[in-house]
Amino acid sequence: MKIVKTIAEVRQQVKEWKSQGLTVGLVPTMGYLHEGHASLIDASHRDNDRTVVSDFVNPMQFGPTEDLESYPRDLEHDAKLVEAHGGDLIFNPEPSEMYHEGFSSFVDMTVLTQELCGLSRPVHFRGVCTVVSKLFNIVQPDRAYFGKKDAQQLAVIRHMVDDLNMDLEIIGCPIVRESDGLAKSSRNTYLNEAERKAALILSKSIRLGQDMVKKGEKDCSKIIEAMKSLITSEPLARIDYVKIVDCATMQQIPALDRPALCAIAVFIGKTRLIDNFFTEDV
Amino acid sequence: MKIVKTIAEVRQQVKEWKSQGLTVGLVPTMGYLHEGHASLIDASHRDNDRTVVSDFVNPMQFGPTEDLESYPRDLEHDAKLVEAHGGDLIFNPEPSEMYHEGFSSFVDMTVLTQELCGLSRPVHFRGVCTVVSKLFNIVQPDRAYFGKKDAQQLAVIRHMVDDLNMDLEIIGCPIVRESDGLAKSSRNTYLNEAERKAALILSKSIRLGQDMVKKGEKDCSKIIEAMKSLITSEPLARIDYVKIVDCATMQQIPALDRPALCAIAVFIGKTRLIDNFFTEDV
Repeated sequence: MKIVKTIAEVRQQVKEWKSQGLTVGLVPTMGYLHEGHASLIDASHRDNDRTVVSDFVNPMQFGPTEDLESYPRDLEHDAKLVEAHGGDLIFNPEPSEMYHEGFSSFVDMTVLTQELCGLSRPVHFRGVCTVVSKLFNIVQPDRAYFGKKDAQQLAVIRHMVDDLNMDLEIIGCPIVRESDGLAKSSRNTYLNEAERKAALILSKSIRLGQDMVKKGEKDCSKIIEAMKSLITSEPLARIDYVKIVDCATMQQIPALDRPALCAIAVFIGKTRLIDNFFTEDV
Repeated sequence: MKIVKTIAEVRQQVKEWKSQGLTVGLVPTMGYLHEGHASLIDASHRDNDRTVVSDFVNPMQFGPTEDLESYPRDLEHDAKLVEAHGGDLIFNPEPSEMYHEGFSSFVDMTVLTQELCGLSRPVHFRGVCTVVSKLFNIVQPDRAYFGKKDAQQLAVIRHMVDDLNMDLEIIGCPIVRESDGLAKSSRNTYLNEAERKAALILSKSIRLGQDMVKKGEKDCSKIIEAMKSLITSEPLARIDYVKIVDCATMQQIPALDRPALCAIAVFIGKTRLIDNFFTEDV
């Protein structure tokens, strides 16, 4: 397992692999890897001859008041995890390697990004689409792996790949949870002991929503109200959104008459956490 | 020489060539090919084993009041020209093949597009960047060829390729002119006899600017004023812009103290024509 810092080194390594007829999987991450990332690396290792993990806290997808500076970083820990799960290369560039002076191009879209996290984080998906496009062009992978926890991100990337004719396959992998139900996230490290307990309200409300769908509830507003009321019962929680949207368009729908995503974003203290479920998986 | 209409056919053909170790050049065009395009195909044929010419009037780069509907088309003529100049494949998709229902992604940039044609044609470069990105992803060429007549387009595409780490080389080719000096353009076909004569004022003003630079004039406003005054002497001409900009940033400069582009856009009757020169080529 190698760690490289420059685009040229990644290109050279991938070119060498491709000349040997090997397939390449890419797992784009912002580092501080946990079992959620590990499951993506496992999936890539299973499907491809070689796996590249990018480990880059992308400044472009953070808003001016967000947690870019404090976002946790631990390359040594990441390297051990990548190696243990069969990854072959970590690409860990400095911001200046990815965004040189005069950088001004971007990739974005006019729908899908206007709902859910796109409302609370207006520059977020432009940053995600741009950096992911760059990583795809640098690594030129056969497949790329993203977690379903960032459900809107996964939908946005699938749509971008389809619209712009990018020549690779996008694989979405299931949410990985702590034993008590909290969805794994690098941001969980921000939580103090009381907040960590309070954060359980996210997965509890997800289970409540899933149960209602399982019992046949079709009225989205009833499901949303029940979930909101449960979340509000937790004093440390503040709702950013609880919404049910069409999987394809990310637009809100009144009734469960098509494949839908139920997505929530909740502040626990100062930490914004997200969770979700797809009605088709219930 | 083959003509194909679908992305899948292009991909299959290029994959076959690449599996044989052949290099591929791409010449993106909007069709109605003239000797300017022919020079690009010649250059690609010289540098690469195979040459793909895309022939697609891209709706996304036309503004609502522009000439999308009337833009001239003649695939039969184009096919003969491509074949005569050694091209191997024409990609001639319908708009619905390039922009399916729900299409909403785009590539754009925050600088370089804010001056010259970007001011008169606000959605133009977003359309150019998006369609060129798509063509690059579909064809995956080793090299792509663009004319220096669209000087700002060439600068924008070079910048996009660099910013987004697209893995190909961009080649800029010299302006090709009619024997009397008029820069070749598919839009010249719009001109009636009187306008065709009046249109010579563009290349005349370009030669005037070049002469002043050759004689050592460094004051951009003097060069611009002399060119404007010459163009204004032609009753059928109406100036859109006459500007001198930094080659790298496309920002206006007061003095010729760095590599610069002198670019003009002039309406002759209802037809908007462009021409330019690079001070380094004088």
